[in-house]
Amino acid sequence: MIAQRYKDMLSGKSVIRQISEWSTARGTEIGYENVFDYSLGNPSVPCPEHFTKTCIDLLQTKEPVTLHGYSPTLTIPAVRKAVAESLNRRFGMDYGMEHIFMATGAAGALAHAMRCVAVPGQDIITFAPFFPEYKPYVEGAGLNLKVVPPRTKDFQIDFDAFDAMLDENTAAVLINTPNNPSGAAYSAETLTGLADRLRAASAKYGHRIFLISDEPYREIMFGGQPIQYVAKFYDDTLTCYSFSKSLSLPGERIGYVAANPRCEDAEYIVPMCGQISRGTGHNCPASLIQLAVAECLDETSDLGVYETNMELIYAELKKLGFTVVKPSGTFYIFPKALEEDANAFCKKAMKYDLALVPGDSFGCPGYFRMAYCIDTEKVRRSFAALEKFVAEEYGK
Amino acid sequence: MIAQRYKDMLSGKSVIRQISEWSTARGTEIGYENVFDYSLGNPSVPCPEHFTKTCIDLLQTKEPVTLHGYSPTLTIPAVRKAVAESLNRRFGMDYGMEHIFMATGAAGALAHAMRCVAVPGQDIITFAPFFPEYKPYVEGAGLNLKVVPPRTKDFQIDFDAFDAMLDENTAAVLINTPNNPSGAAYSAETLTGLADRLRAASAKYGHRIFLISDEPYREIMFGGQPIQYVAKFYDDTLTCYSFSKSLSLPGERIGYVAANPRCEDAEYIVPMCGQISRGTGHNCPASLIQLAVAECLDETSDLGVYETNMELIYAELKKLGFTVVKPSGTFYIFPKALEEDANAFCKKAMKYDLALVPGDSFGCPGYFRMAYCIDTEKVRRSFAALEKFVAEEYGK
Repeated sequence: MIAQRYKDMLSGKSVIRQISEWSTARGTEIGYENVFDYSLGNPSVPCPEHFTKTCIDLLQTKEPVTLHGYSPTLTIPAVRKAVAESLNRRFGMDYGMEHIFMATGAAGALAHAMRCVAVPGQDIITFAPFFPEYKPYVEGAGLNLKVVPPRTKDFQIDFDAFDAMLDENTAAVLINTPNNPSGAAYSAETLTGLADRLRAASAKYGHRIFLISDEPYREIMFGGQPIQYVAKFYDDTLTCYSFSKSLSLPGERIGYVAANPRCEDAEYIVPMCGQISRGTGHNCPASLIQLAVAECLDETSDLGVYETNMELIYAELKKLGFTVVKPSGTFYIFPKALEEDANAFCKKAMKYDLALVPGDSFGCPGYFRMAYCIDTEKVRRSFAALEKFVAEEYGK
Repeated sequence: MIAQRYKDMLSGKSVIRQISEWSTARGTEIGYENVFDYSLGNPSVPCPEHFTKTCIDLLQTKEPVTLHGYSPTLTIPAVRKAVAESLNRRFGMDYGMEHIFMATGAAGALAHAMRCVAVPGQDIITFAPFFPEYKPYVEGAGLNLKVVPPRTKDFQIDFDAFDAMLDENTAAVLINTPNNPSGAAYSAETLTGLADRLRAASAKYGHRIFLISDEPYREIMFGGQPIQYVAKFYDDTLTCYSFSKSLSLPGERIGYVAANPRCEDAEYIVPMCGQISRGTGHNCPASLIQLAVAECLDETSDLGVYETNMELIYAELKKLGFTVVKPSGTFYIFPKALEEDANAFCKKAMKYDLALVPGDSFGCPGYFRMAYCIDTEKVRRSFAALEKFVAEEYGK
């Protein structure tokens, strides 16, 4: 008999996906080049040529039985070693390969990290605005997602609200910096404040509260600002990474969990990930892809277009009178809508062929997300539509 | 605080893996070519050249943003369509693309299939001897694995024992034909008997009992025998497939779930798989690999070596007086040990540099598994060691 739980989930369609589907449908009517589709966070720049060349080289030169053979349960040792060394070089960490577990993108990494440090019935706290998929990820592990309300003036953390939510049932805190959808990156001050509170709460409640840091946008920072590497601030940190955005490889499902060598039971985290995989059917990422990214760890796609787009859009939004926090990174911006109901706002925008996503499912009603991983030329063309929309609907 | 459940699992090491590790360690002492390693089910023949060429061609000609882009939640439509058509052509089925969900190998496929048709607390029945990983797979979904004792005379099904085990808590029955470790393929008679009982039990208990058919060895059949396609016998069948063995791609994690178009709620199974993925962090298999296997669906590696090896080993075992059922397929054989304790038997074999796996963890004590996916030359060389072992330890 089919499982009602998953059948019931079918009716709850993602808002992002609905708007994206509208864009595609509208595109078949008027030409997709005329739809200003800011709905989806799909990288718009190609992967580095080096990645393609490495794949081809592996396929041409490596013995196929070895190349396509089973990964060891804990994933390919040489790849794990290369990831550890890259993180150590770039962020002054001291990971060994024993702290790295290759996973199928951030979704795979988060699924493992949560199961490592939380047991069904416990809570995971995150901060609005947050990536809506966190909810099924967390609930799929039998956990509860608790959401701290947003601090909209800068999208840093509202610590008073956080303090009120931390309790003995808190297993872990999940952060995403720089953030989808706000584009905000947590400052050193924010991370210090967070770490202090987690240490105090761990002591108070008698168990380590882990910090799960979801970092797929880490390499997309603007204005030459360095990213604050979260694990430097708090020992009990599991870093979840995906190469989806930095190398433009979302379909290849490749990322990792990195356990801070100073976290509780650090030597067990990766072996536990291997056990968790057996129960979820996750297995290792594709061997070919593991081996290829290992050769491209300190590279990125040409990500400059995202900053170009952000500067253009930010200036345009300010010109039109929007309340908006300037993103520090990612390819998202999260302005305040021009009416209280962001769903109504985004619906009206469709009349002008603008695909914007309301903030409600990100835990932040009244705001909307624009994903500007699109051609700069299209960004520029969209401004006429945006201006018309704002003038006709809101008299601005 | 780290999750004790997974930490506890670390002590329960797989016997297969322990023996494989012993083989590797012994290999560094005396040269791996001198260890007769029958422990692991790793394909020993390369993937078809066409697979390699297809990957290279995709990398050289397809636009990278598209090639490496996100798969839709239900996996790549063109790939699903190609799989459905291949199954229809080969087995006279009538799958549409809406019945196919690409998964990360059989482990991924099984994880989805079980969650589709069983809810935590229900039972999955399987038949000894069985692949030991079924236990963590089933328990990882919150289900109980119940094991029907083996019918050792031919490794078909002991229906009396099965009848005694079927009850109202049975959600699904999990079979593996041809079978790891016995090499037996279920006959049409066995499958008809199984289907009859499942229909009767579904009616009796008022809910459909699904048949989950794990078929990674389907393409490795001996003596020109056709495989019986399980879903032809029973409507409520979910077929779980992996290309790991047929195309020698175990590390690339690629397979699928195929829902029989006549199963209960057939149109919901694949969308439910998409929902299940969100909770387990599974996601889609790598895009490049999905697209490449779609071009190689009716091909296999050159699998003839497995039959050559089987014939040699079977004759040798018979000559030495072993009780053994001749395999119909796979690259395994499962003889009776020469003493009651197969663990002791396999331990003694190590003295002769023979790596054999005791049947206990397969639910069949007193038997042992040989995985003969190794060079035929090594198979031949192993016979002197086997003969010496049997003569010195058992006086045969």
